[in-house]
Amino acid sequence: MERTLEHFQSRTDLAVEERERFEDDDVEISGVSIEEEFDEETEIKVTRVMITTEKGAKAMGKPKGTYITLEAPNMSVPDEDYHREISAALAKQISQLLPKNKDEQSILIVGLGNREITPDSLGPDVVGNLLITRHIVEEYGKLALGRDKINKISGIVPGVMAQTGMEASEIVRGIVDETKPDYVIAIDALAARSTRRLNRTIQIADTGIHPGSGVGNHRNGLTEKSLGVPVIAIGVPTVVDAATIVNDTMENLIEAMEQSNQLKGIGNTLNLFNATEKHQLIRELIAPHLNGMFVTPKDIDETIKRIGFTISEALNMALQP
Amino acid sequence: MERTLEHFQSRTDLAVEERERFEDDDVEISGVSIEEEFDEETEIKVTRVMITTEKGAKAMGKPKGTYITLEAPNMSVPDEDYHREISAALAKQISQLLPKNKDEQSILIVGLGNREITPDSLGPDVVGNLLITRHIVEEYGKLALGRDKINKISGIVPGVMAQTGMEASEIVRGIVDETKPDYVIAIDALAARSTRRLNRTIQIADTGIHPGSGVGNHRNGLTEKSLGVPVIAIGVPTVVDAATIVNDTMENLIEAMEQSNQLKGIGNTLNLFNATEKHQLIRELIAPHLNGMFVTPKDIDETIKRIGFTISEALNMALQP
Amino acid sequence: MERTLEHFQSRTDLAVEERERFEDDDVEISGVSIEEEFDEETEIKVTRVMITTEKGAKAMGKPKGTYITLEAPNMSVPDEDYHREISAALAKQISQLLPKNKDEQSILIVGLGNREITPDSLGPDVVGNLLITRHIVEEYGKLALGRDKINKISGIVPGVMAQTGMEASEIVRGIVDETKPDYVIAIDALAARSTRRLNRTIQIADTGIHPGSGVGNHRNGLTEKSLGVPVIAIGVPTVVDAATIVNDTMENLIEAMEQSNQLKGIGNTLNLFNATEKHQLIRELIAPHLNGMFVTPKDIDETIKRIGFTISEALNMALQP
Amino acid sequence: MERTLEHFQSRTDLAVEERERFEDDDVEISGVSIEEEFDEETEIKVTRVMITTEKGAKAMGKPKGTYITLEAPNMSVPDEDYHREISAALAKQISQLLPKNKDEQSILIVGLGNREITPDSLGPDVVGNLLITRHIVEEYGKLALGRDKINKISGIVPGVMAQTGMEASEIVRGIVDETKPDYVIAIDALAARSTRRLNRTIQIADTGIHPGSGVGNHRNGLTEKSLGVPVIAIGVPTVVDAATIVNDTMENLIEAMEQSNQLKGIGNTLNLFNATEKHQLIRELIAPHLNGMFVTPKDIDETIKRIGFTISEALNMALQP
Repeated sequence: MERTLEHFQSRTDLAVEERERFEDDDVEISGVSIEEEFDEETEIKVTRVMITTEKGAKAMGKPKGTYITLEAPNMSVPDEDYHREISAALAKQISQLLPKNKDEQSILIVGLGNREITPDSLGPDVVGNLLITRHIVEEYGKLALGRDKINKISGIVPGVMAQTGMEASEIVRGIVDETKPDYVIAIDALAARSTRRLNRTIQIADTGIHPGSGVGNHRNGLTEKSLGVPVIAIGVPTVVDAATIVNDTMENLIEAMEQSNQLKGIGNTLNLFNATEKHQLIRELIAPHLNGMFVTPKDIDETIKRIGFTISEALNMALQP
Repeated sequence: MERTLEHFQSRTDLAVEERERFEDDDVEISGVSIEEEFDEETEIKVTRVMITTEKGAKAMGKPKGTYITLEAPNMSVPDEDYHREISAALAKQISQLLPKNKDEQSILIVGLGNREITPDSLGPDVVGNLLITRHIVEEYGKLALGRDKINKISGIVPGVMAQTGMEASEIVRGIVDETKPDYVIAIDALAARSTRRLNRTIQIADTGIHPGSGVGNHRNGLTEKSLGVPVIAIGVPTVVDAATIVNDTMENLIEAMEQSNQLKGIGNTLNLFNATEKHQLIRELIAPHLNGMFVTPKDIDETIKRIGFTISEALNMALQP
Repeated sequence: MERTLEHFQSRTDLAVEERERFEDDDVEISGVSIEEEFDEETEIKVTRVMITTEKGAKAMGKPKGTYITLEAPNMSVPDEDYHREISAALAKQISQLLPKNKDEQSILIVGLGNREITPDSLGPDVVGNLLITRHIVEEYGKLALGRDKINKISGIVPGVMAQTGMEASEIVRGIVDETKPDYVIAIDALAARSTRRLNRTIQIADTGIHPGSGVGNHRNGLTEKSLGVPVIAIGVPTVVDAATIVNDTMENLIEAMEQSNQLKGIGNTLNLFNATEKHQLIRELIAPHLNGMFVTPKDIDETIKRIGFTISEALNMALQP
Repeated sequence: MERTLEHFQSRTDLAVEERERFEDDDVEISGVSIEEEFDEETEIKVTRVMITTEKGAKAMGKPKGTYITLEAPNMSVPDEDYHREISAALAKQISQLLPKNKDEQSILIVGLGNREITPDSLGPDVVGNLLITRHIVEEYGKLALGRDKINKISGIVPGVMAQTGMEASEIVRGIVDETKPDYVIAIDALAARSTRRLNRTIQIADTGIHPGSGVGNHRNGLTEKSLGVPVIAIGVPTVVDAATIVNDTMENLIEAMEQSNQLKGIGNTLNLFNATEKHQLIRELIAPHLNGMFVTPKDIDETIKRIGFTISEALNMALQP
């Protein structure tokens, strides 16, 4: 029951937020393990959620795989060397997830999202800053780049359905079939459940992008199953759904009413409702026009520019060491 | 008392929304008159709020002047001839507000807002589509444009403080002092109180832009007093403040509780609070980090492009008939 | 012999410029027919070059097919209704070239070129203004668009090799294989031989895009052979190669020398050279660093915006009548 | 006489190119001194031309002042740390030219040029990457930025006349009068005489921007005389005028003819013309439509992005050490 309400409330692309739902219960979820490390110097916290069984996947509402979350509170503020320490930490985490089946690899990097909507333009921004090498290696060989060993990097910004009339997944699948990369890295702006994580969290997952993820609500995912090659997903929450924010505040109100002495009368009355009824009440009060609306900070332009640079530098480090 | 709560709730740049606060009371506010007309063919509703006395200004929380609102539900949907009927209706309304002291006038059009934030880029978009003539007339004379009579149009996109380190008002005042236009037209993206009016309402006012208006919260206004020449303001609500949306839903909840039989207990308890206490309760429940956040639709990119074109066409019609 | 020199000089994507090489000779080229019409009211000249045999193709240096050129001198100047008359004339010509095998068709429109280089951003600009319908028809059916009969339009901006590491042709072939459109329309900025035609000529061809065409020098073409579906190409010359401009002026100099009485001495001397030697002389004098450079007008930003709009409106008319 | 021809030929904003005209003569120009230094490690060559008398100014066709040229051949190629060594060398040179009358200064940085034309967007690009501080210092004091001593940096992108209807100088003068900076730094894309210096030379001058400079041909300059405060100009040649390129090649042809044995006949004939007649001949052969056209490399998008970053980093170093 509780689950229903919480599920309604959730709308999050972050495994680490999904995990938090269970924290109060202090239960261990079978098939889900979690590791945390904190670097005091850089103030970066890395959380690794591993979902190893179907049961764990069901409990978490996310597919089996590894989800690494890097929380860097400083990421949302400006910095003179463009947060090189975050790029370095991120490069290290990305490297650990990358398939290492070959010495030299061909990698397609996909910048999902809409470059015309500021908080959704993270993916296009990252691809715009990457060191693209595939065409040089194919035309002149790797020595043209002064290296013995080099990965072939290609990049694409597929755009969104309103611009192309096509699913991003159709476009990417076509390109993968044609150019046969060893794996795909997809960058996407995510929706978080709470504003607290906006623009200071990066999630890396080896499970790809799943339907309904991201700001733009991709209907089809980008996964190893759909593309035929492994897909690493890198995401940053840049928006919260408008309905989620309202809902969360309502939850706070109800909780406050139940706990406060002064409001005991309300609390008692509300206790007459079960979770489903409360859920229904909230749903009615949230105006339906909030669907299709998102919440984002007013300085999102500078934030996206900065985080995009941090991620593209991390990819350059991880892919061309 | 009620006023306090409602004022907290309001955060609107639209006179027509301000006026609505008084509708239930069905009182006439002294010094405020209102006219409405509706065109059945185009489905455009024009509301004209005239604030004629200081008392009316105080009641409305807006300076004396004329506020014309044009509501065009179709504006937020695509159209083959780019809503020429809305441009025409808007041109007519703009023309009525323009100063007509001279036969040929020099007009500076200011595109306020941040071109890097989609819902705040309306002003820059409009200026980008205008027919700019001042430099041609100054260099070659009006015959160069094949006309007997021509207004000299100039345009500026001053940017926002985080980009320039200057108030938009400082930049515009400097340019007005230097180029001495007869009047200024300022275009700005506005914040509405409710999502219902987003992207389907255009407000034209002869009072200029006032502090705290707009998405970007200009600290200083653009008014006849500050610039020395009349200022016509054209605004479209493209965002709602995140705190406003939460607050409105909470109001709905409290109202529902007070009215519902089932929730009578809560209603009664809440009746023990006065407006200020309710206001305080809500304020505590709204997370402070919602400040500096805005709500906007997911298709805001296409909407801004379309409305920007509608307004620039209207200005071209009104200024070079 | 003459041919060699002229071939060196040519670097044109326009069939109509290619045809001009033969005009002085006043010969008919076998396998090449030509029709011209001129509309006095709109001042639009339409030339239709049909290459019907392999011999004609060889003489023209262009593949067999129909090349329609629409010359509209007004296109490069601003206009109040955005040159609707040119859009209409263009729509008519496009319609005549479109495959008509089915009642409702699925069409992929490809905006070739680099959106970051102003004269090369024509293709991306056009795709940005199109009425995209494929996703709506696929999700809600054609009635959602209020029509009985509708074409499914999709669009893609593949980017250039320096940005993606991939040939545009690889990307487009992948997408065609995946989404199976009935045909492809490709929009591209072209290189002209002379500045006279820049930004006032539109070429439509049913032969696709061929290697070496366009500003960006695509190495692989987009043709029915390479994509498996017919390809209509729409191009506008927006640049001239820097080497071409220098070469042309040199040709003028040599010609002037040969003809002028005053310069007869030079003319006589030059007569001692044959075409190949003259060609060699010119090649040496043209600095090699001019390769990879282009010439374009200083107001190319406004021109591209205007022509892009003219073409996208024409496509909207032709594809959704 | 020679001078006339060479003046026609010149169209350069670079003092160092102006100086080269005199090199063959190996004369010293009175009132013009020159210093050069070369750093073997970074391969950066710094040339300092000081024009100290009116006579020198007249000979050079440039106002009295200091012109520093930094030539960095690597600047036009990509680099992993974004050419930090060039930024550092540039910061050092900029620092030496800055007025040092006060401990803390207020500086307005002007990004001249058209952001919609790739090679002319250097100025807007640089301003977009700057550390802007004026508004923070004015609102919260310098401690808000964690420093004892801080310069107040503001920035403006005035746009070009076709977009604003105003001279950039009118806009900047208005803003200077209103915000009273201690001095102005203006960034501009320049026209060079030869393609050899494109995108690898940065010129810093303490004389401001003069009429006719830059890609966009500003009619009025930005100088201490016109603005009332010192103006430092930073420029990079990103284009060559189309007429200049043709003219240069013609000069090569004539020179070759005069020298070659084989072409002696022509040389002799040409000797019958004086410089003015030759000049006239060339002018006739250069098509008039080349005016208003520029030549630029095909990879100008990446180059501008890179050089813009190098300059903004240099300004950040020089202004907030």
